[in-house]
Amino acid sequence: MKKGALALLVHGGTENWSPERWKNRFNEVCSDRRVVLLPDMAFDPAEIHYAAVWKPAPGELAAFSNLRVIFNLGAGVDALMADNSLPKVPLVRVAVADLTFRMTEYVVLHVLMHHRQELYLRESQREKRWAPRAQWPAGAISVGIMGLGTLGANAAEALRHLGFLVSGWSRSRKQIDGIACFHGEAEFDTFLRQTDILVSLLPLTPDTRHILDRKLFAKLKRDSPLGAPVLINAGRGGLQNEADILACLDDGTLGAASLDVFEKEPLPADSRFWTHPKVVLTPHNAADTDADEISKYVARQIERFEAGGALENVVDLARGY
Amino acid sequence: MKKGALALLVHGGTENWSPERWKNRFNEVCSDRRVVLLPDMAFDPAEIHYAAVWKPAPGELAAFSNLRVIFNLGAGVDALMADNSLPKVPLVRVAVADLTFRMTEYVVLHVLMHHRQELYLRESQREKRWAPRAQWPAGAISVGIMGLGTLGANAAEALRHLGFLVSGWSRSRKQIDGIACFHGEAEFDTFLRQTDILVSLLPLTPDTRHILDRKLFAKLKRDSPLGAPVLINAGRGGLQNEADILACLDDGTLGAASLDVFEKEPLPADSRFWTHPKVVLTPHNAADTDADEISKYVARQIERFEAGGALENVVDLARGY
Repeated sequence: MKKGALALLVHGGTENWSPERWKNRFNEVCSDRRVVLLPDMAFDPAEIHYAAVWKPAPGELAAFSNLRVIFNLGAGVDALMADNSLPKVPLVRVAVADLTFRMTEYVVLHVLMHHRQELYLRESQREKRWAPRAQWPAGAISVGIMGLGTLGANAAEALRHLGFLVSGWSRSRKQIDGIACFHGEAEFDTFLRQTDILVSLLPLTPDTRHILDRKLFAKLKRDSPLGAPVLINAGRGGLQNEADILACLDDGTLGAASLDVFEKEPLPADSRFWTHPKVVLTPHNAADTDADEISKYVARQIERFEAGGALENVVDLARGY
Repeated sequence: MKKGALALLVHGGTENWSPERWKNRFNEVCSDRRVVLLPDMAFDPAEIHYAAVWKPAPGELAAFSNLRVIFNLGAGVDALMADNSLPKVPLVRVAVADLTFRMTEYVVLHVLMHHRQELYLRESQREKRWAPRAQWPAGAISVGIMGLGTLGANAAEALRHLGFLVSGWSRSRKQIDGIACFHGEAEFDTFLRQTDILVSLLPLTPDTRHILDRKLFAKLKRDSPLGAPVLINAGRGGLQNEADILACLDDGTLGAASLDVFEKEPLPADSRFWTHPKVVLTPHNAADTDADEISKYVARQIERFEAGGALENVVDLARGY
């Protein structure tokens, strides 16, 4: 029997994400299978058993009546979940070590930047001021990570290794060596009140939308060598109330923020985030993905699935991630 | 018998380094011993058995005829070694875990900044450009550390933990798990040719003065995702040929540099380092020291010494560190 074809649907992104590059990779790792790159439609949609997608538009997958699995080429599936026309088949998210390690790089870099007063030091350099400030050790700073899945747990461990006090908060109870793990609604405030640097790695669900707001920021630890608490959001733009972040940076409720994600991307040119002196902005590149690693991951899952094995990292539709 | 007094000689520095703060700390940890703060001279110099110093001027210790040990309050002893009038007693340098961990923070931060294209990303933010560039993983970058003493070995381990390829070079042979260790003159070029990001943590000795020059930079790895090799110097300003660094940044022999130390400190206002777009400058604060930790370290060593034990971290006068 002919093997089911794989449809690739890739929109936007950097040079890393060029649709042709993805197609070449998938042709290599699925060499015994037809790979079609949408919107090329010179094939029968019924042939398509698998779809590997990056930012599909709502409805784009509706026509594939024989679809068996959808693979999302990134970690966040919130946009896909919002597409009501999505075929009712398992949705698999990417969970490759490469992506995890890149996110850890981002989190460690931005925690260290704020801990080591980089905003102040760059300002001093611009003003040609040789003016070292007293510097506290990592052990004086409590980093709190929201979201203790694969990404959060790996970042937590790396920060602990550098000497930070690390805690985490998640929906369900987790246990990680050396990390103070809080969970659920009931422990949320306790978690926030002991956090100097808040790292958001949560998935976006109806429960977490706009969770990063003034009410939350006001609960973060107030007495810290940093002066005021710091927000690092490398999760999803929809997690943040952006007006609240700006207002809290302005009035000192927050001391600084590193933001990789935004409600609207690319971030509009008139956003105050671009020019705010306390904002370190990155263009949603905290954890860029590697087409090699991810195409192999998808190919492995398809092989296992066709051999009767279970898919890994299937999104729980009720939970939303 | 009355215990020998301790003379404190502390010049310059940040609020962390205020002479009074040091005196208070030493009074606490050497409560059974007289502690005098120079230049207060209302005591008999012959009473002084120990000196704890930070940036003494040449000759300032010459008058203490009964001195038994000199403790340098930092890691670098090059300035002291150059003082010919220094009493011929053991010279001990600081080696406390706190200082080591702070240096590791600095090295990890600056390696990550260059690896993750922070100079480009900050420029993009200033210009309001949402323009992510392709990003390689840590495993694509080889970090080479010059100097594999306590500081270098700790930084190497932390970088390896984040996924970087890490190698090191030192005068004598070292062995560190997971780190490619090179040593001596004969292996120096091999070490340089495979290095993308060069981290200098060498002590300053007649052998290492101006070692960071064009000849060395030209040997660093040319084919790297970074485009051109990067220099991070957190050792000593005297290690660098500053004119060569600027010329190599200008002509692309170096892609960027993080510099914490300079031939002349504070760095003069007319130095091009302040404004060079490829330079990340810090005011010799890579590894700030903690008066608590260091005063305890000195007190412990004095106790042991008076009980007939050996001093630790005594400078080898022939080697120069």
